[in-house]
Amino acid sequence: MEARRRFLGVTTALAGALAGCSGGNTQQAAADADTEPSLLGKVPSDYGNRSPHEKSKRTYADSKTPQAGSSRTPLQDSYGIITPNSLHFERHHAGVPEIDPAKHTLLVHGMVDRPLVLSVADIKRLPSVSKVYFVECSGNSGGEWSGKGAPDAQRSHGLASCSEWTGVPLSLILSEAGIRKDARWLLAEGADACKMARSIPVEKAVGDTLVAYAQNGEAIRPEQGYPLRLIVPGWEGNINVKWLHRIHAAEEPFYTKDETSKYTDLMADGKARIFTFDMDAKSVITAPSGGQKIAGKGFQEITGLAWSGRGRIEKVEVTTDGGKTWTAAQLQEPRFPRAFTRFRMPWTWDGSEASLACRATDESGYVQPPRQVLVEARGLNSNYHCNAIKFWKVQADGSVTNVEA
Amino acid sequence: MEARRRFLGVTTALAGALAGCSGGNTQQAAADADTEPSLLGKVPSDYGNRSPHEKSKRTYADSKTPQAGSSRTPLQDSYGIITPNSLHFERHHAGVPEIDPAKHTLLVHGMVDRPLVLSVADIKRLPSVSKVYFVECSGNSGGEWSGKGAPDAQRSHGLASCSEWTGVPLSLILSEAGIRKDARWLLAEGADACKMARSIPVEKAVGDTLVAYAQNGEAIRPEQGYPLRLIVPGWEGNINVKWLHRIHAAEEPFYTKDETSKYTDLMADGKARIFTFDMDAKSVITAPSGGQKIAGKGFQEITGLAWSGRGRIEKVEVTTDGGKTWTAAQLQEPRFPRAFTRFRMPWTWDGSEASLACRATDESGYVQPPRQVLVEARGLNSNYHCNAIKFWKVQADGSVTNVEA
Repeated sequence: MEARRRFLGVTTALAGALAGCSGGNTQQAAADADTEPSLLGKVPSDYGNRSPHEKSKRTYADSKTPQAGSSRTPLQDSYGIITPNSLHFERHHAGVPEIDPAKHTLLVHGMVDRPLVLSVADIKRLPSVSKVYFVECSGNSGGEWSGKGAPDAQRSHGLASCSEWTGVPLSLILSEAGIRKDARWLLAEGADACKMARSIPVEKAVGDTLVAYAQNGEAIRPEQGYPLRLIVPGWEGNINVKWLHRIHAAEEPFYTKDETSKYTDLMADGKARIFTFDMDAKSVITAPSGGQKIAGKGFQEITGLAWSGRGRIEKVEVTTDGGKTWTAAQLQEPRFPRAFTRFRMPWTWDGSEASLACRATDESGYVQPPRQVLVEARGLNSNYHCNAIKFWKVQADGSVTNVEA
Repeated sequence: MEARRRFLGVTTALAGALAGCSGGNTQQAAADADTEPSLLGKVPSDYGNRSPHEKSKRTYADSKTPQAGSSRTPLQDSYGIITPNSLHFERHHAGVPEIDPAKHTLLVHGMVDRPLVLSVADIKRLPSVSKVYFVECSGNSGGEWSGKGAPDAQRSHGLASCSEWTGVPLSLILSEAGIRKDARWLLAEGADACKMARSIPVEKAVGDTLVAYAQNGEAIRPEQGYPLRLIVPGWEGNINVKWLHRIHAAEEPFYTKDETSKYTDLMADGKARIFTFDMDAKSVITAPSGGQKIAGKGFQEITGLAWSGRGRIEKVEVTTDGGKTWTAAQLQEPRFPRAFTRFRMPWTWDGSEASLACRATDESGYVQPPRQVLVEARGLNSNYHCNAIKFWKVQADGSVTNVEA
């Protein structure tokens, strides 16, 4: 009932917006509709492509070592909560390996009673589940620490994407391998050239972790770990090990190069935090957002994405006056834990400058902080785990720009 | 807790299957993992593609008039409930028109107080929603009426797909246009060369119907109606009018060529049913299914898809003995109304012949019928709305084939 009242309330505001936008020459439009060309269109195809009018793409920085690089999802062009596989962000440490799934195996060994070598076909026979989860690079929004921030949602927040993943619970494979009671950590290792590897506590591994082979209804894409990826819901992206080929059970963490030389958080006092697994609650307005332009005064829905590695998003508040007042946005249901949640708020733009932002609260009660709170707590040495509130400024001409925080 | 018990129960059965499949030479596998090539892989890209090892594609029949044709989703290769946009089924009446979204408009006229012409940009400013819905051609499984049936899930059930659609509730647009109280029907017309058009009761139009512009996180694909498609949840696919450019409100239905010359159901007595909107409850096993082969004895998950135009799927039962006994399958949660629901059942194949099938029950209490019940009720004159139970036969060599019903 609340949603219905909101829509009806909005409708009143729409009248002006639509009259202004549409021109309203309906007789001409009807005549046009009757005289449109009647050429037969294209025939069915075996694998479709998007319209040539759609130009949205992943962006990446120039680099002398592009294999150790990343590309970003164009969140400003996103709808709903699913990220198209072709636009899912990338972060590689040694490029995308070319893997023949018929030759790929997963080795499970170490402190297990029955070491296993599983083919991809073996894994696909096992009991499976499908779950919607985000994956976010812990370096996402790292540029926001400086306070200058990125000019659009892609460059500020585009190292995060969300998919329906299908695979086998890791708990099942570990149970089958007979993991020993004194095993406390796993190594998960990829088959890329650098053998990217991370240590994972067994408690998480037997919780919601999946050995996934499919993403949004098809095989996982090469750049997302084809043919097997570990999905560790809500944890740093790099722990969701791609091209997964080995799991080693042990008593202690492995302190791999990938969790000592990087992915630690250097504090102001010179000490570094290690194993900061969870991605905290975060949100960003995707429309209207940096680089976009509002066509004119009137009704303009504000929408964006929120997510938390600690569970469900419980609330997203939106401000249009630079943080003086905040209003709860509508959350698209159902809200999956550790997945993108789409939020929306009706807004009528009066043509004057406005400062927009959103802040998320998750089911643990954690509230997304302003940048200054993060800087005070952690200093400026590390770029990881920046989940600060992001502001966009609407200029009087309707263009939207970044705001220094 | 039930799911957990089931997995644990399965695990016992897995022991044999995995030992048989994996060979278990873990020392060799560990040595292989240490000596794999270490070449740098591919660099990030702006729009990704699937692995060249993935060959799944839409299929279509040869035709002298391919613009009035269809292509089918490879459901046997599906995972979860989302259909990749590139593999969403097609059914066109005059091919896929090439439309510039900057020039495309939606005209709303007829029995309305304020006729409207909306641009795509206008529509994207309005309050939006995202919902997961299936779309199914009413001719899907038409070949099953004969009793011979198709040899694989793609050719038997592949005119059905499921997406997260984003758009504006049609109720909002109709309210804005001031639809008159005595308007009872709408015409929804596409901008394709044949101006495919259907009549829709206002009651449904102001219910859950959407004017959608996005599908699975990106703009709707050209073959799915770019830039605007009417989504009429649970109703015949053709009513989900693609390339939507005109809505006309009236007192009576329009009896267009598309709802008189086709999409009526000719009964045995020569009378035809018209406006048979709802797609009834239906299901199909996607793995193991026709054309696939089970690699060997042992654990083999049975999985498939169920859906109903009348709401949520409440139950899917699976038989492995040709219908003598039926067991409730596990349903992937959450179950969205009028969307695909993924079902799964643990099964251990003993190497002998088996006859597999599934039957769905929806929240209205309706149970998917055997083919003979449909034939007795409706005769053999019409190919539309076939939702019969589909059987697959597992041969002793593990190959899976169609069963004549």
